[in-house]
Amino acid sequence: MTLAAGLALGLSFGNAAVADSHDMARYKEMFEPIPSIAPIPADNTQTPVKIELGKMLFFEPRISASGIISCATCHNPALGFADRIPLAVGHMGQVGERKTPTVLNAALLEAQFWDGRAATLEEQALGPIEADIEMAMPLDEAVQRLKEFDVYQEMFAEVFGGDDPIKADNVAKALASFQRTLLTPNSPLDRYLAGDEQALTDKQKRGMRAFVDRGCVACHRGPALSDSQFHRIQVPGSTDLGRYLVTGEEHDRHAFRTPTLRNVAVTYPYFNNGQVATLDEAIRVMGREMLNLDLPDDEVADMVAFMHALTGDMPEFAFPALP
Amino acid sequence: MTLAAGLALGLSFGNAAVADSHDMARYKEMFEPIPSIAPIPADNTQTPVKIELGKMLFFEPRISASGIISCATCHNPALGFADRIPLAVGHMGQVGERKTPTVLNAALLEAQFWDGRAATLEEQALGPIEADIEMAMPLDEAVQRLKEFDVYQEMFAEVFGGDDPIKADNVAKALASFQRTLLTPNSPLDRYLAGDEQALTDKQKRGMRAFVDRGCVACHRGPALSDSQFHRIQVPGSTDLGRYLVTGEEHDRHAFRTPTLRNVAVTYPYFNNGQVATLDEAIRVMGREMLNLDLPDDEVADMVAFMHALTGDMPEFAFPALP
Repeated sequence: MTLAAGLALGLSFGNAAVADSHDMARYKEMFEPIPSIAPIPADNTQTPVKIELGKMLFFEPRISASGIISCATCHNPALGFADRIPLAVGHMGQVGERKTPTVLNAALLEAQFWDGRAATLEEQALGPIEADIEMAMPLDEAVQRLKEFDVYQEMFAEVFGGDDPIKADNVAKALASFQRTLLTPNSPLDRYLAGDEQALTDKQKRGMRAFVDRGCVACHRGPALSDSQFHRIQVPGSTDLGRYLVTGEEHDRHAFRTPTLRNVAVTYPYFNNGQVATLDEAIRVMGREMLNLDLPDDEVADMVAFMHALTGDMPEFAFPALP
Repeated sequence: MTLAAGLALGLSFGNAAVADSHDMARYKEMFEPIPSIAPIPADNTQTPVKIELGKMLFFEPRISASGIISCATCHNPALGFADRIPLAVGHMGQVGERKTPTVLNAALLEAQFWDGRAATLEEQALGPIEADIEMAMPLDEAVQRLKEFDVYQEMFAEVFGGDDPIKADNVAKALASFQRTLLTPNSPLDRYLAGDEQALTDKQKRGMRAFVDRGCVACHRGPALSDSQFHRIQVPGSTDLGRYLVTGEEHDRHAFRTPTLRNVAVTYPYFNNGQVATLDEAIRVMGREMLNLDLPDDEVADMVAFMHALTGDMPEFAFPALP
């Protein structure tokens, strides 16, 4: 972001004063709280049974070739719906090329995967089932396997109706419905945006101001702290062409969708290659890559504190009982 | 079991009448309800924090070489704390030689693993972490990895005290403590044994009587419906030497610890090699292997119904939040 752009957004550079209520209104426009319910597409409305079915499928390892890998293996609810290892590990222990992104609040993003090759959760859901290095299960086999279970026969029929309700499209719809419930409201930032001045510490408020003043908010904005757009960035150790592999456009070389910063403190390690372990280092890398400067230590420490203010309430639910 | 032994136990062979209250007293001695709390060894008393720590470790994939396999991968809470595939799959997709046994009610058994090579849950807990085809993590590395997390430092110190609380023995103790909470009370059989005549259907009562009259109860008795003893059985397709591999004793060739029948309807497939998919077939195999006879169809159907009466309330708990 240029200085002019910063000024156009009404940002104040310079002294990092503790936020006041005037600031709060300003921050409210930039960040927005987590909504109480995610946007629901007209062609995949939510019902409790559809959500429950989606939850079951999310935990269902028998739609993987090995029989032990489910969505929840890499998007592990105990680990912030990610895996906390640098690169995803899948079928037969194969190591992928990218860090597992969290599913938390993915419903608030308008581009899925690091390279945005899916626009919606429905488009995203089936990819990892089929991918050779993830669950490695051809979709028709996954569908066949689900058909073996009376419980799935009944639930798909109830949810989707029709002659042949167990089909890949419906698997995707159910999974997407469940994933839309995985929001994390009530973070310190959300409580602050709702009017509680005390929800953020002074250090976190300084970090928030620095985050805004440095222009980080240009991309990390809105309820997910992501613009769902693609930006070129080549973090240390990465040769990944990113979005270019999807579009073939030169300007997409090494471009990645802005990741959400929601729950960033519990979804380490960082970046497309997962090679950065700490928030401190991740913020310094962003300073160098996007702003071409070494951020001062105190500012980095303040921003780390602000990042911790983005951890919300994790979704709570009982384990599904699979058939 | 011989006819004489059956008579010595006071069993009645022949007509399968519906159970009455006289029967109930008899069945109560043979099966016993699930206790409200598992037997606790004096050197590993339970505390809420120890149980919580054990739960975290049970779900902790970072003590596996791949970083994605935890105890809960094969002992999956969504699948009756087992995996519902014939043979266990572990590190790098390697397929083991035996079916994953359920952890549910394992605290009621006096021999762990199919071959009883561990007597207690404490002795059992570390094996799968180290095993090359399971989690494939040397114990000292697992311990080192846990030490990297402040949360584990604090919890192990609180639970175990001492200079160096994070050590393999304590990992085993915490895991065992958690596993002792995985009881499944309140099955139809338990409700029947508590005095509710209506808890079992007539078909289930006929199945229970057949189960007793045929002598199945000789080994499948007590609260877990297992005597924790070793019996020779070579199910179709199995060449596994079982207990012999532990003791080297001739009489242990192809001997296996009696598996619990608690929750048997949700812990398919069956036997040490997992090659039998249904209760119906499993009961027929047991008839042929142990009684040398083909059980009549109606008796098999009744026993299947009785097996369904052994499914209790699954433990309910929230996902742990790992550090």
